[in-house]
Amino acid sequence: MTTTGNATTPAAGGSALGDPVHGVAVRSAPALDDSVRVEGGVVRILDRRVFPETVSWVTATDAEEVGAAIAGMITQSSGPLFAAYAGLEMTALQVAGLAPDAARERMREAGRVLESARPTNNHPREAVAHVLAAVDAVAGGGGASDAGTASIVEAAVEAAREGAAIYRDRSRRLGEATVELLPDGARILTHCWMDTYLIEFVRAARAAGKRFEWVATETRPYLQGARLTAHTLAEFGEHVTLITDGMGAAALAAGHDADSGLEPGARHTAGIGPIDALVTAADRVSLDGSVVNKVGTLGLAVAAHTFGVPFYALVQAPDAESPTAADIVVESRDPDEVLHTLGRRTASSLVTEAWYPAFDVTPSRFVSRIVTDRGAFEPARVGELYAAAGERA
Amino acid sequence: MTTTGNATTPAAGGSALGDPVHGVAVRSAPALDDSVRVEGGVVRILDRRVFPETVSWVTATDAEEVGAAIAGMITQSSGPLFAAYAGLEMTALQVAGLAPDAARERMREAGRVLESARPTNNHPREAVAHVLAAVDAVAGGGGASDAGTASIVEAAVEAAREGAAIYRDRSRRLGEATVELLPDGARILTHCWMDTYLIEFVRAARAAGKRFEWVATETRPYLQGARLTAHTLAEFGEHVTLITDGMGAAALAAGHDADSGLEPGARHTAGIGPIDALVTAADRVSLDGSVVNKVGTLGLAVAAHTFGVPFYALVQAPDAESPTAADIVVESRDPDEVLHTLGRRTASSLVTEAWYPAFDVTPSRFVSRIVTDRGAFEPARVGELYAAAGERA
Repeated sequence: MTTTGNATTPAAGGSALGDPVHGVAVRSAPALDDSVRVEGGVVRILDRRVFPETVSWVTATDAEEVGAAIAGMITQSSGPLFAAYAGLEMTALQVAGLAPDAARERMREAGRVLESARPTNNHPREAVAHVLAAVDAVAGGGGASDAGTASIVEAAVEAAREGAAIYRDRSRRLGEATVELLPDGARILTHCWMDTYLIEFVRAARAAGKRFEWVATETRPYLQGARLTAHTLAEFGEHVTLITDGMGAAALAAGHDADSGLEPGARHTAGIGPIDALVTAADRVSLDGSVVNKVGTLGLAVAAHTFGVPFYALVQAPDAESPTAADIVVESRDPDEVLHTLGRRTASSLVTEAWYPAFDVTPSRFVSRIVTDRGAFEPARVGELYAAAGERA
Repeated sequence: MTTTGNATTPAAGGSALGDPVHGVAVRSAPALDDSVRVEGGVVRILDRRVFPETVSWVTATDAEEVGAAIAGMITQSSGPLFAAYAGLEMTALQVAGLAPDAARERMREAGRVLESARPTNNHPREAVAHVLAAVDAVAGGGGASDAGTASIVEAAVEAAREGAAIYRDRSRRLGEATVELLPDGARILTHCWMDTYLIEFVRAARAAGKRFEWVATETRPYLQGARLTAHTLAEFGEHVTLITDGMGAAALAAGHDADSGLEPGARHTAGIGPIDALVTAADRVSLDGSVVNKVGTLGLAVAAHTFGVPFYALVQAPDAESPTAADIVVESRDPDEVLHTLGRRTASSLVTEAWYPAFDVTPSRFVSRIVTDRGAFEPARVGELYAAAGERA
């Protein structure tokens, strides 16, 4: 892998479309909407570990380097899906000179490398399965009627591009279903980084003629909210207010709980107006509606439930392999991250112990709706209702 | 004001007492237990804005400089109380050469400066009232039997030292009452920085032969938990685990909510054991039991209530002037702090809006007990019960 970048220019993706809104040019495509590219036979991946302070692209020249980039957290959230598809597309171009059997074997080898890069992120596995199925569907398997390598390459490239497009399309439908739940002008509290879901959600709102206001948590320890979510919303020209993770309950109580103050007319300073909905992505949703998402989601969901604010959790589909939350492994990450902020030690040097669960589990009773690419469903029955919606379609 | 310090030596207060526990020498007096001193006729105040990364003392040579140090957040929490008493003691020593009337007037002037330094922190006002009452009680007022300046100086110095000692003594009784509520070995989640309450709480536990484990939130934006609380507990040789502010609900659900996972034996990583109690200080408590404390307390209290973990809020006494939370002004601070971490910009440069309510309001229904220097009381009746306990004493 090699890295190229510009450490001084602030990130600015897409093209400026017109009038500045809130002092920021409105962009059709925020930088993070286009953070993995196949260019000149190599894969380029935007380094999200340092974005937006630094805009740096990592170049991967084979599937192994793409896998290392995914494992090294160069990209995360939806990023590994696009990186895996890009890695497979690049590999297909690289096998054009091989015999059909060798080409197939190299595609499978690339698939094994990519799908094992992040054991708890399902996205690369989905991408590999989609592309290898297309490769296998090309007539032959070494027999008399074996298709040529050109057909394999063409099928793999097409499947990789189609897979990425399907993911965007499902995210768009998910965004549209979420917009239907919210009135024009709604003030939305969000946590961490919803990636493609967020981008398609904003686009769907605009297509529907609705405009939302945003309150984003900073999301320690990686600060995805302060760096990725707030940045992307600002690129879109959306109005976004940043809060620390501990301020979520105060924001949710404002205007909903008389005792908790922040009422108009009370003596508490109301810096933001009432929140109309909590909206987050979900890394996984079990068939009985437990939401596994970035740690911090549980506390916000419990507060939203307590103060009567709806919580919508977004996922393309519930996880067919996870009947309950107990079937989902919640990984812990390096606790050293809690002692540091963006690489700098911020805890006392005497403190040696920390805890960093990457995700938490929000039981279905604290969730109002699970929003999928087939619509919004009652959480406790999401597995059954999602399947039924598929049969109707 | 002048500043002296040592930017390279890590903070280490008090004297080492014996065997290292958890790799840190056990100390009888953590650094923050002795952070305001009257020495050589001046007041020295430990700069908490940079502690413990840097140990730096600010020197104030008159009451005006002490007031500026309080206003400038050199010290906070219990610090302004000790700083106000120290400023009054220093002023008393400075008026020794004046005529009695001039000495009295200068004491009153110092009082006005100190009590207006922080409008929402009641501590300096209490200190000024306590010392000026002693000055006024010295016989005379310009009449024939007017006491000499020496008597005024003596009364003021004595009252200042007595006032600080009373505050420590009430904190000790508060600590003892809290220890009574907790079993030996309890695991305590705490938020922000309880200052003298925390120090006396640990001492009371040891005197009672109990030992606790601690989980501390880092408490953005100022990181008082990561810098002051975790540091002080480590100085004491206590076992403390640091978490980010968003992890509190996951910690409170662990072992209490089957659906939220983190059960022993479940597939979720249990980095810490179940929490037995949430314990925080309260900046103010209304007579009907609303707890005004560092923002983030509300979210933890709601999660503790939801998962059946008791929440004990510590305050020497409820605020007799605040029948309800609506009588307490909750200040907003500079939102720029949310965009930065310890002076470094950590949010995207495109993000311009942030919200920083310094405190939040936790209604009494989420609080298990208000613990005071007269014992632990039912929150909704704390005003009445605290007063009755005073009449019995």
